[in-house]
Amino acid sequence: MQCEPIAVIRSPYRDKFGVPRQSGMVEEIEAIIQLLPPYNRPEAVEGLEGFSHLWLQFHFHLNDPQRDRGEGWQPMVRPPRLGGNRKVGVFASRAPFRPNPIGLSAVRILAIHADAARVEIRISGADLVDGTPILDIKPYIPYADAIPDARAGFAPAPPPSRPVRFTASAEAQLQQLDQPRHLRQQITAILALDPRPAYRAGDDDNREYGVRLYQWDIRWRRAGEAIEVIEILPIGD
Amino acid sequence: MQCEPIAVIRSPYRDKFGVPRQSGMVEEIEAIIQLLPPYNRPEAVEGLEGFSHLWLQFHFHLNDPQRDRGEGWQPMVRPPRLGGNRKVGVFASRAPFRPNPIGLSAVRILAIHADAARVEIRISGADLVDGTPILDIKPYIPYADAIPDARAGFAPAPPPSRPVRFTASAEAQLQQLDQPRHLRQQITAILALDPRPAYRAGDDDNREYGVRLYQWDIRWRRAGEAIEVIEILPIGD
Repeated sequence: MQCEPIAVIRSPYRDKFGVPRQSGMVEEIEAIIQLLPPYNRPEAVEGLEGFSHLWLQFHFHLNDPQRDRGEGWQPMVRPPRLGGNRKVGVFASRAPFRPNPIGLSAVRILAIHADAARVEIRISGADLVDGTPILDIKPYIPYADAIPDARAGFAPAPPPSRPVRFTASAEAQLQQLDQPRHLRQQITAILALDPRPAYRAGDDDNREYGVRLYQWDIRWRRAGEAIEVIEILPIGD
Repeated sequence: MQCEPIAVIRSPYRDKFGVPRQSGMVEEIEAIIQLLPPYNRPEAVEGLEGFSHLWLQFHFHLNDPQRDRGEGWQPMVRPPRLGGNRKVGVFASRAPFRPNPIGLSAVRILAIHADAARVEIRISGADLVDGTPILDIKPYIPYADAIPDARAGFAPAPPPSRPVRFTASAEAQLQQLDQPRHLRQQITAILALDPRPAYRAGDDDNREYGVRLYQWDIRWRRAGEAIEVIEILPIGD
């Protein structure tokens, strides 16, 4: 079976690192679904405005092809939720490395723009890197899709949230940017999820990390139970 | 992007006609997910037993290729829920005819059988014809996937359920089959959803329909507000 992208995501997440591991975790971040020709026809999204959420089925396009289907399919993976040292079956996980690398995310619809020139859907809660190819868009139908009492093995609840603080110099840098309050909320929501690789997320990890968001490289590290933003640098060339 | 089936569904639904239009509507029907080589390794489903539900991403393989991608993509469809006479955008519907014909269903896990000879997952609530190719299996994660308060346009609630009754001769036929009580429950659950094509589901429709289930052709018609099972025939050659 052959699939081709019907849309592409424009999001402020510049790399995989820092992207929330499930959809709906960071509602503060907005993204745009841009429908591609020949699918960018206003009729194709007519009626979607009656729904609050939609499903995205997308291609995990940043998978290393060496690890992707055909060249390195692995029957077991190490989910971050298990600390990165316990393995589960790939079909018991939402890992991007899967036989068919198709992802699934439920996101909130904020606005739909549809005219002859472009068809775009503004969303929040996406867990998608900028440029992710979208294979399908479906309305979220709660009577079929919402099973709040489902039992969920090793992921029964959202991961714990860490407090996030800014150093004085990071705070000063923030204040010089557009919409500093909004950007602080976004950075806080993303880093509260502690994006460190699970195998390094121990207590003794003091190394510096960078999450690339919009045109900024957010430098941070773990500090006790908290996450500390060290500085905010423009992304270099 | 190229996808290949990782599994196939074995279900009692012999045709598209009669299959519930969403997953979870008919929990009385069980199906089996049979993993295909090289994906049929017990490790690939390890940990799935901790989850009560899973997502299936599957190929709408019975689409008429004339209407399928490339040869007849239509930007608007007529969902049964709108009586078959109002159109909505294909991306505002769950219709099988879509640019990439990938379906999405949440089903309940009943049991997992995994050994070196075969890997199978027994499920209920599937809305899949026997033989449907499965592209991916993912655990259902309620904290990300369950949005019970989502607003759902033209499909805010399950379709109304009709009473189902059996004629005396259908009842007599039923009693001669294996597990008549169980089969009656299954037939009742399926027909209560009134599988008639939406454009014919008016009050004046008295024609006879057949739903093929297991090795039986269940003959039925609408009778007032109810559905009446007329007879139960073996599927002919």
